[in-house]
Amino acid sequence: MIIVLKPQATRHDADELIDRIGALGLKPLYMPGVERVVIGALGDERVLERLQLAGHPAVESVKPILAPYKLVGRDLHPSDSVISIGPVEIGGERIAVIAGPCAVESPAQMGLAAVQVLEAGATILRGGAFKPRTSPYAFQGLGAAGLEILGAVAKQLGVPAVTEVLDAADLEAADPHVDCYQIGARNMQNFRLLKAVGQGRKPVILKRGPSARIEELLLAAEYILAEGNPNVVLCERGIQTFDQVTRNVLDVAAVVAIKARSHLPVIVDPSHGTGVRAYVAPLARAAIAAGADGVMVEVHPDPATALSDGAQSLDAHQFRQLMRTLGPVAAAIGRSL
Amino acid sequence: MIIVLKPQATRHDADELIDRIGALGLKPLYMPGVERVVIGALGDERVLERLQLAGHPAVESVKPILAPYKLVGRDLHPSDSVISIGPVEIGGERIAVIAGPCAVESPAQMGLAAVQVLEAGATILRGGAFKPRTSPYAFQGLGAAGLEILGAVAKQLGVPAVTEVLDAADLEAADPHVDCYQIGARNMQNFRLLKAVGQGRKPVILKRGPSARIEELLLAAEYILAEGNPNVVLCERGIQTFDQVTRNVLDVAAVVAIKARSHLPVIVDPSHGTGVRAYVAPLARAAIAAGADGVMVEVHPDPATALSDGAQSLDAHQFRQLMRTLGPVAAAIGRSL
Amino acid sequence: MIIVLKPQATRHDADELIDRIGALGLKPLYMPGVERVVIGALGDERVLERLQLAGHPAVESVKPILAPYKLVGRDLHPSDSVISIGPVEIGGERIAVIAGPCAVESPAQMGLAAVQVLEAGATILRGGAFKPRTSPYAFQGLGAAGLEILGAVAKQLGVPAVTEVLDAADLEAADPHVDCYQIGARNMQNFRLLKAVGQGRKPVILKRGPSARIEELLLAAEYILAEGNPNVVLCERGIQTFDQVTRNVLDVAAVVAIKARSHLPVIVDPSHGTGVRAYVAPLARAAIAAGADGVMVEVHPDPATALSDGAQSLDAHQFRQLMRTLGPVAAAIGRSL
Amino acid sequence: MIIVLKPQATRHDADELIDRIGALGLKPLYMPGVERVVIGALGDERVLERLQLAGHPAVESVKPILAPYKLVGRDLHPSDSVISIGPVEIGGERIAVIAGPCAVESPAQMGLAAVQVLEAGATILRGGAFKPRTSPYAFQGLGAAGLEILGAVAKQLGVPAVTEVLDAADLEAADPHVDCYQIGARNMQNFRLLKAVGQGRKPVILKRGPSARIEELLLAAEYILAEGNPNVVLCERGIQTFDQVTRNVLDVAAVVAIKARSHLPVIVDPSHGTGVRAYVAPLARAAIAAGADGVMVEVHPDPATALSDGAQSLDAHQFRQLMRTLGPVAAAIGRSL
Repeated sequence: MIIVLKPQATRHDADELIDRIGALGLKPLYMPGVERVVIGALGDERVLERLQLAGHPAVESVKPILAPYKLVGRDLHPSDSVISIGPVEIGGERIAVIAGPCAVESPAQMGLAAVQVLEAGATILRGGAFKPRTSPYAFQGLGAAGLEILGAVAKQLGVPAVTEVLDAADLEAADPHVDCYQIGARNMQNFRLLKAVGQGRKPVILKRGPSARIEELLLAAEYILAEGNPNVVLCERGIQTFDQVTRNVLDVAAVVAIKARSHLPVIVDPSHGTGVRAYVAPLARAAIAAGADGVMVEVHPDPATALSDGAQSLDAHQFRQLMRTLGPVAAAIGRSL
Repeated sequence: MIIVLKPQATRHDADELIDRIGALGLKPLYMPGVERVVIGALGDERVLERLQLAGHPAVESVKPILAPYKLVGRDLHPSDSVISIGPVEIGGERIAVIAGPCAVESPAQMGLAAVQVLEAGATILRGGAFKPRTSPYAFQGLGAAGLEILGAVAKQLGVPAVTEVLDAADLEAADPHVDCYQIGARNMQNFRLLKAVGQGRKPVILKRGPSARIEELLLAAEYILAEGNPNVVLCERGIQTFDQVTRNVLDVAAVVAIKARSHLPVIVDPSHGTGVRAYVAPLARAAIAAGADGVMVEVHPDPATALSDGAQSLDAHQFRQLMRTLGPVAAAIGRSL
Repeated sequence: MIIVLKPQATRHDADELIDRIGALGLKPLYMPGVERVVIGALGDERVLERLQLAGHPAVESVKPILAPYKLVGRDLHPSDSVISIGPVEIGGERIAVIAGPCAVESPAQMGLAAVQVLEAGATILRGGAFKPRTSPYAFQGLGAAGLEILGAVAKQLGVPAVTEVLDAADLEAADPHVDCYQIGARNMQNFRLLKAVGQGRKPVILKRGPSARIEELLLAAEYILAEGNPNVVLCERGIQTFDQVTRNVLDVAAVVAIKARSHLPVIVDPSHGTGVRAYVAPLARAAIAAGADGVMVEVHPDPATALSDGAQSLDAHQFRQLMRTLGPVAAAIGRSL
Repeated sequence: MIIVLKPQATRHDADELIDRIGALGLKPLYMPGVERVVIGALGDERVLERLQLAGHPAVESVKPILAPYKLVGRDLHPSDSVISIGPVEIGGERIAVIAGPCAVESPAQMGLAAVQVLEAGATILRGGAFKPRTSPYAFQGLGAAGLEILGAVAKQLGVPAVTEVLDAADLEAADPHVDCYQIGARNMQNFRLLKAVGQGRKPVILKRGPSARIEELLLAAEYILAEGNPNVVLCERGIQTFDQVTRNVLDVAAVVAIKARSHLPVIVDPSHGTGVRAYVAPLARAAIAAGADGVMVEVHPDPATALSDGAQSLDAHQFRQLMRTLGPVAAAIGRSL
């Protein structure tokens, strides 16, 4: 860690900081420059977090050298992790395709959507029972009944299922019905929920918040791993910017940026990532071309009547068309569906 | 609501949409233009939310005429609301000053901070027991012990107290100790928590998320009011932008923009809103000058040793200096401390 | 155009606005709702721009129905445009690859870079003579001497060349040496420059500003077409967001969003779009997979000594590797290099 | 400057970098840590800009210690600068008020606006002759005729005038008519224009670009000072964010952040900074309360018919009301109008 002192800082200030650094077991380094005094701290600088040095009146800025996460980082775990959701591996040579409706609406709708996406080649089923909605007047999901429907459909078809949980209280209800929890973008920093899923072993798809920096996403994942659960898949799903031509801007480069820093698999959600049906397929292809380990796509038997997110849902025909083009793109970079 | 059809939409598409609008009790209006067909829907367009018209394949865009919130809006409630936190009114002629440490660290620290801020003129005490932190390795707050300390200090000094709750599960623990719940920026769209605080009558300070649009903040407040609790104070605390010279960019104009739309009182948190100690006082003054109903300021007896947010905490001397300048600014716009 | 009046607007206000709309030859439509009066204006609403209705005290908001651009839009020109830069077509079945150093540094450097990129399969040469730099202390380009070098190398190798122009005054100097002008991101709204290049027929690569909305990019292109020059290629090169893990966030979906609105070809610059050497190849592949008509890549014989943008420049070996993977991705979506 | 090497960097890489640093006259410092090697460079690190060390394959990141600007910074020029525009000083105890119409439309409009703002207490007159507009179909200003009108009105009333210049070519035309040039937000990084105004002595109001970081604004000002013109006033006028409830988000804290780094005066433009007439007065008050040295406000005799920016223009009555409240706010912080 590099601590830059203010121009008016005294030698006494520097000595005090050097003592505090040394007391934590790091090796302090005094570097007097012409215009600023700089203090280095060699060693595991994460323990310095406790000192909150940025709050010291003599400190101008603090520049960490090491990433603030450990368990999710590549420094201690250089090789890629492969996470299993039921029998499906994410992070290996094969690209995972998770598909299904935004919300579970009825047994008929969920069953039909499931058959449609599996026939087209999807390998994991998604469906939302608890729907976090911006407006209290929007459809909030079927809740426990939705979980039952999703679980029953998945079991009948022999496919793993994933659903979003909003709260630690949802885990018990969801556990028997799904093979994987999803933590949605709005809950990426719901630390109670992160700790709760960290205490089990069920895999977790952790979505990046729409305004979360990549470092914040990795620290959120660190919460889960720090509790003992290594089975985390990260998901880029679009970030919020100044342009609202699309619902979000899908940060395709995040796939590369995350993989440069972390061993965890990374998938992409082009449905939320664009919010526009016609953009889903090209962006799914782009995600695979950039190195994503999978995609998560919203598919509804009849998007015009969907109770949520119809504008970004594909119908069965559109999803089949997408699947036909994903294989060649995967092959172009040496992977397969 | 105005529904713009795609150029290739047919008369049949338009008729179908007109029928669906009429079936919900609104008056549809057909407006064929040279380049686009436009359909109007007159009446309470919020019921159209259910139709999810943006998902219809013939629809290019949907433009609401009315705000999507009702209870927090000024259309049905034109005059300003005044919310009481203990004996302190927020939203009237007097400016409220909420102050205290970011985190409760010990009885001595909390007690000293409380005495310092009350002597300087603060009227509500703050202190965090549950601390949501980006990194799992950072100080997470004293939890229940922190609530006890805060409650005891506040009772002894006869001042109302506010603390952040992270989860519906925290309400029971916090209830006996505080007069007001705070919902932090990261939880602004924790809809379970919003509903939970909405079911009581205890006032709630709802902070704007760092990337929440004002409409999203108002819809979050709508969740609380829709459950029956009208006692909501909104809080601007800085938004996330492309510049990280300050921790956040304090959106001072949000005070005016919110008040133009909502009857709820608005306060400002210049501590989180800037993240820099030296910026807190000028921004507190700016907030008052722009019409804020109060400010919330972090004060710590010794910021250099604070366990969290030391860099943005004032010490007692700095807080007294700030308080001396707030009065004249309030007077300049016809209000008082 | 839809004009929503304020709740307190009178029938007199509405009549005045209706008269002003009618006087411009549009058909006004009066739609009194329960909570708001709405006025429609049918016809070519672009003439309403002159009325600046949003400034009227009785107007709450103005919602355009049509896009504000005409010449670049698809409404009047539905089929894709193909633009020629020398013998190279952009916008057809083949993907264009524009490559070369960020800045022309010397005849040797430019010549070597040119040979390297052409051997690897690039078809258009790039090199900057005028470099807009954030700091006055950074290398500002060789100016006229750089143009001479670029032109001479391109002629000798028989390949079209493109260079950035900063100012109308640069056109005369650049004209004899290059086949295409580039307008950089910082100049996207330099309207004098847009008009100047619009008065010729030389093709123009217009880069999206780092904080320009897609509509603003299209309006900037409209300036060029409105002056008479139809030969415009649009270029996505990354936008500014809250995360600075990469220099910019490459908005890959912009390729699709622009093509949905405009007939102009769209290329992508993954070098500026990421600012990180290791991210260039995956993002170039993503751009092609999403439907871009070409990519523009910075290549330097020795990036470690480059005078500008070394951190994002590929060396010859890395560029050859990239080119080998682009072909299969193009083939996967039915195109070719 | 602190140079962090990649984990796989060799001792040979470090030695090479140390040699390059030493060759430029700085003192290199080798700091081998457990997980990363760090190299320090003590001395005037701005000369290292030339080395473009971030482009070196062994370098993970480069962290500057010093600001990249010198002339505008406080390190070498700790006390506040006071800049004179005609007889009006900006940066001293008195708050400057610059007012007038967005665009010069006619002698009658300009003359009336001028009389109105001067009677209300403004001390500098503004009026645009060259209008940069997003759409080619919007009013582009009267050009040279507008300059004549502005100059004549200002001379007759004995008040200094400021107008926006878009291009070095405008300076000759504008010079006889105005006392100060304004460089607009879109041109903040038009480096040719910055250099051109830097070669004279006429004061320059430099507006922050809507997506410019404060460091970029200061570097843009550095261009002007580096050419020899010290008479620069910086202007905050709103930044672009994810929320478009207001046209821009006025970054009031930028006043404090700039003053912490630079000795130049800072003014605020609440008209562009909000884009909404009703928000101008509260934000002008907020700017003064935060320490701004002046405000620039758009005033039009009849905003409903203004040819540009009517929605954010005050009329004479509203401006008089604003002026009456600014004095007490200035007095509250020990300044005066």
